[in-house]
Amino acid sequence: MLADIQSWGETLRLLVELAGTAAFALSGLLEAARKRLDAVGVCVVACVTAFGGGTLRDLLLDRRPFFWVQHVELLWGVMALCVLVMLFMRQRHFEVTEKAIQWPDALGLGLFTATGVHLALNEQMPMLVAVLMGVTTGVFGGVLRDVVCNEVPTAFRDHRPYAVCAFAGGWIYAGLGLLDAPGWVALVACVVVTAGLRLMALWRNWELPAWRV
Amino acid sequence: MLADIQSWGETLRLLVELAGTAAFALSGLLEAARKRLDAVGVCVVACVTAFGGGTLRDLLLDRRPFFWVQHVELLWGVMALCVLVMLFMRQRHFEVTEKAIQWPDALGLGLFTATGVHLALNEQMPMLVAVLMGVTTGVFGGVLRDVVCNEVPTAFRDHRPYAVCAFAGGWIYAGLGLLDAPGWVALVACVVVTAGLRLMALWRNWELPAWRV
Amino acid sequence: MLADIQSWGETLRLLVELAGTAAFALSGLLEAARKRLDAVGVCVVACVTAFGGGTLRDLLLDRRPFFWVQHVELLWGVMALCVLVMLFMRQRHFEVTEKAIQWPDALGLGLFTATGVHLALNEQMPMLVAVLMGVTTGVFGGVLRDVVCNEVPTAFRDHRPYAVCAFAGGWIYAGLGLLDAPGWVALVACVVVTAGLRLMALWRNWELPAWRV
Repeated sequence: MLADIQSWGETLRLLVELAGTAAFALSGLLEAARKRLDAVGVCVVACVTAFGGGTLRDLLLDRRPFFWVQHVELLWGVMALCVLVMLFMRQRHFEVTEKAIQWPDALGLGLFTATGVHLALNEQMPMLVAVLMGVTTGVFGGVLRDVVCNEVPTAFRDHRPYAVCAFAGGWIYAGLGLLDAPGWVALVACVVVTAGLRLMALWRNWELPAWRV
Repeated sequence: MLADIQSWGETLRLLVELAGTAAFALSGLLEAARKRLDAVGVCVVACVTAFGGGTLRDLLLDRRPFFWVQHVELLWGVMALCVLVMLFMRQRHFEVTEKAIQWPDALGLGLFTATGVHLALNEQMPMLVAVLMGVTTGVFGGVLRDVVCNEVPTAFRDHRPYAVCAFAGGWIYAGLGLLDAPGWVALVACVVVTAGLRLMALWRNWELPAWRV
Repeated sequence: MLADIQSWGETLRLLVELAGTAAFALSGLLEAARKRLDAVGVCVVACVTAFGGGTLRDLLLDRRPFFWVQHVELLWGVMALCVLVMLFMRQRHFEVTEKAIQWPDALGLGLFTATGVHLALNEQMPMLVAVLMGVTTGVFGGVLRDVVCNEVPTAFRDHRPYAVCAFAGGWIYAGLGLLDAPGWVALVACVVVTAGLRLMALWRNWELPAWRV
């Protein structure tokens, strides 16, 4: 019974991870299309968006191997996704895709944040650094995508809460860890808070406080 | 008496380090305001400008932990600075701020350069590489700021000597080290030369030789 | 006799490496001139273009020392090249330079790709990752050049096969390695395939398949 629940939990986690990775890759693909990149650019930007955040975190924490080296099938998967999308996706599908990836993107943001905080705490990082590593994991894929595509990163200028949701979720994860809560409780709480805040922000059009210079 | 001087030296060094970090963060804040970033962007750009150079150096030298992990209070300090600045600084304060940070920025440039050269020499880097690591420490925070803000880095196009001053100071530091001068002599010489050249350049409107294509 | 051939091979390899590095540096210099960078920017962009790809590969594989630390004379060489170019090259030489570097650039792309694949396989990377490390070695110098110069990377948008040639050559190298071919056979095959495809692509105006959105 307990084993059953655990295995269900594992499966669910894997599904969220795959959905989140696909959502990140798709957001890279959309940006690449907008910038009229060629086939090489499309694949690179999709991979950078999908794997950039976790890779930057691993670089900063000096962890090896990267997760996309350990699970090279993820890399194959994203490249297959690129080919399929270039064959079958057209301008008229862009808007509906953008809508469709909001949910998996928000869930992925929560999961990747929790993973980042977890790994950083394992390496004895201070709490603030661990939370920022979580935010980095979730957010810097998109930042690198925008840097490569020669844009000011959306996450830094669109006044929509995104990194802030991950920041809140990260503190929840680190705080529950401090209270010796079981790992899966902290994980679920982090995902629920992060994704919940993000989806609320999109639904209610919340805006970040602006610096009125 | 000697202990007194040493402790004075240490305090002075810490003051310059804090002032330099604050000056770098402020230059990031001004750029973020110019680009109308949101609160998240403002904080990220300030942190990247303040810590980016040293972090890149540590990545290249494969040193861990990063100084902002060891002294996480620096990170808290820059974030507090961001909040204060967003609350109280307005457009009309920008020009005076830009003037006010010239001195601490120049002193910080000198100190960070010396630190970079010192750490690289400790890892048995060749002299040229050590000096370039010093320059990287001082200059690449600003470079990363401009890359994230989608500008050609100021340090590469404004024809004002900046990296060149750090380069000169770095050679002074490495050269004095070769002559077995005491560490604090090399440090002071590097800061004086770097900051002196930089401030002279600003005062006399020195320009870098241009490539007349 | 055999020793003779080996030493000839080594010399040839070194020549290609130097020519490739110079070609990469020159492409950085041309871009820096187009962007009207100052002397500091010119040198940094030339170094980033020449050494950026290999450095990123070494960062990702966690290899130290970097090759430009081990062979610091390469760094001196590129800096001397920068000074010479700024003194003597003018607008009217740009077009002929661009033509002249096509051959060494293509050969260098092949050699650097082979080196990248080789080093990654040595670190037990999976084949796909090793090939991508080869491509990174050859291509990301130019990508970093364009990011620093605030352009969408040429390699991602000009529809000319470049990374794709390295990708093909990389698989050749990895495949021949799998078949236990001697190292120099794999190396020569990789260079011939990569450079051959690249030069054919330039000569015949091949275009990458575009994503018709």
